[in-house]
Amino acid sequence: MPVTLPSSHCPPPALAQLLGITPDGPLAPAWSVSQWFGHRGAALQPEALRGRVIVLHAFQMLCRGCVHHGLPQAQRLHGILDGPEVAVLGLHTVFEHHEAMRAVSLQAFLHENRVAFPVGVDEAGPAGDPIPLTMRRYGLQGTPSLVLIDRAGRVRRTSFGAEDDVQLGATVAALVCERPV
Amino acid sequence: MPVTLPSSHCPPPALAQLLGITPDGPLAPAWSVSQWFGHRGAALQPEALRGRVIVLHAFQMLCRGCVHHGLPQAQRLHGILDGPEVAVLGLHTVFEHHEAMRAVSLQAFLHENRVAFPVGVDEAGPAGDPIPLTMRRYGLQGTPSLVLIDRAGRVRRTSFGAEDDVQLGATVAALVCERPV
Amino acid sequence: MPVTLPSSHCPPPALAQLLGITPDGPLAPAWSVSQWFGHRGAALQPEALRGRVIVLHAFQMLCRGCVHHGLPQAQRLHGILDGPEVAVLGLHTVFEHHEAMRAVSLQAFLHENRVAFPVGVDEAGPAGDPIPLTMRRYGLQGTPSLVLIDRAGRVRRTSFGAEDDVQLGATVAALVCERPV
Amino acid sequence: MPVTLPSSHCPPPALAQLLGITPDGPLAPAWSVSQWFGHRGAALQPEALRGRVIVLHAFQMLCRGCVHHGLPQAQRLHGILDGPEVAVLGLHTVFEHHEAMRAVSLQAFLHENRVAFPVGVDEAGPAGDPIPLTMRRYGLQGTPSLVLIDRAGRVRRTSFGAEDDVQLGATVAALVCERPV
Repeated sequence: MPVTLPSSHCPPPALAQLLGITPDGPLAPAWSVSQWFGHRGAALQPEALRGRVIVLHAFQMLCRGCVHHGLPQAQRLHGILDGPEVAVLGLHTVFEHHEAMRAVSLQAFLHENRVAFPVGVDEAGPAGDPIPLTMRRYGLQGTPSLVLIDRAGRVRRTSFGAEDDVQLGATVAALVCERPV
Repeated sequence: MPVTLPSSHCPPPALAQLLGITPDGPLAPAWSVSQWFGHRGAALQPEALRGRVIVLHAFQMLCRGCVHHGLPQAQRLHGILDGPEVAVLGLHTVFEHHEAMRAVSLQAFLHENRVAFPVGVDEAGPAGDPIPLTMRRYGLQGTPSLVLIDRAGRVRRTSFGAEDDVQLGATVAALVCERPV
Repeated sequence: MPVTLPSSHCPPPALAQLLGITPDGPLAPAWSVSQWFGHRGAALQPEALRGRVIVLHAFQMLCRGCVHHGLPQAQRLHGILDGPEVAVLGLHTVFEHHEAMRAVSLQAFLHENRVAFPVGVDEAGPAGDPIPLTMRRYGLQGTPSLVLIDRAGRVRRTSFGAEDDVQLGATVAALVCERPV
Repeated sequence: MPVTLPSSHCPPPALAQLLGITPDGPLAPAWSVSQWFGHRGAALQPEALRGRVIVLHAFQMLCRGCVHHGLPQAQRLHGILDGPEVAVLGLHTVFEHHEAMRAVSLQAFLHENRVAFPVGVDEAGPAGDPIPLTMRRYGLQGTPSLVLIDRAGRVRRTSFGAEDDVQLGATVAALVCERPV
């Protein structure tokens, strides 16, 4: 006698709640990126990645929490989940020490840390605003921040600070598995 | 205009492949447990947990890899995902130093390590076999081992040794999100 | 022209103060040990080790801080400094869960954790006292504790809880280098 | 009856051998530093620090091993041992990605990482030589490197790569405790 799986929503409400996934979210705004490292061709945009879950790791190369926790985590995530269903990307959102973290320094940083996913340089804001354009547009509070965008292009979670690997892996997989309701 | 999610299998084949989830598996055999810690009432069995994904952490209290990696991981998993959709359980599968790891020692070990999920003591094998009954029945190669059982009660993955947190979190969530095909 | 070292006390007062080494201390009481693991022959005693600095790691095999911090540190210390000048020893001071940490369990624990230095089992106290004899005699507050005994057999520092590796390495070396005043 | 310490050399030959301390070494060459951070007044030089043991941590701000191991270790060492007997210093020896690690970037790096000891910028070498002057003069093989200079101003050990905390703490204390022979 065959075994049948019980029917399920995905993610089931109880799991969505444990993971802090809200059922909906605003469409992900465009990214303003002055330069991409680790990516050639047309500029990456949320819309062009529609259909994949996007994990956007917003960081600064001199931010301690980014170097010691956020970036290694993004690298693990990239090594394990990046593929047809998941896109892991970095965004260098410099909002302090601007002179210290120019593109030439970032490039060496990415090389030395063997970052294998594409990293965009968030475009400088208008005169007088230290916050770069994309960071401002997404309302990020600092670095490291994680932005999770679902396959339909909606921002489903934005978090600031350290996040647990189990929680993050589960959340990304749950978003990959979502189906139309 | 409403945003619609693309239709999807769950887990999609590409993700299932990255996570090493095979599409099917044998029904999980019963557990032979002489004593449960952290659980009262009827003995736990895979069948009674049908509908939830089961993460079974097989360990020995004096195994280094269990103490330093497997058990803390199971505790993180329990803290984050255990609930209506996921059941995290321990199984004390003593196959060496039997005198050193009796129930009285295990009980103090669980207390000192604040293990909050149920832990069963795998029942001793027949005379002359150092391998306990459930460990033998599941064909585990050593400790720590992880057994992942899907909502339909099938063993979907058995792994021996250290496993990455991102990988495990994603795998459990993908199994939770499976739907009938 | 030859270079000459400035004259110095050892440890110089400023260093002794940074390391928390007092200039004197009481003679180390005898150890009451019911059984030694990793040592054959006459029972080890502070007096018999006179001339070497003794690092005594008091622990319980089920104490989390011991397993995750104190014991690995003692093992590093043993691997680096143990020799004609330094003796690293363990003392199993069980003051709780006595039934859970009997000698047979300790023996397997030492084997699984590849403890390469001698470990003594602290002798049970008089009826009604859960604290074993040596632990009581040295006034230890719990586990892990470190007892540092100088080359003249005096207890120079007793500490309870986690200790930094740099601090410990420096303290042991400073004690080795002491000279008669 | 008073307890007397056995007489001793410092460090005793057996300890010196375990720690890899040779009995002698060449006088430490001068440092060529274009700029000091965390230090005001006359440029620091080995000669001016005669009488203290100098721990010189040579690093590059984008070198992974420096950021994850060497620099945190130097900070622990500074917090524990720096004082009248020990001077912990950093030297930014940039031999690659020169444009990426200019002084303005280093300054922000030191701020973000809360480096509390003086750090000098190693002076650029002659045209065509990517190795800076002091790094060349000391024959350092890469970063991170540690240079230990004794109280008489002699280079007693130069090491490249990761070093154990116990070993380093013990070596520095042993050098502090040396006395004229």
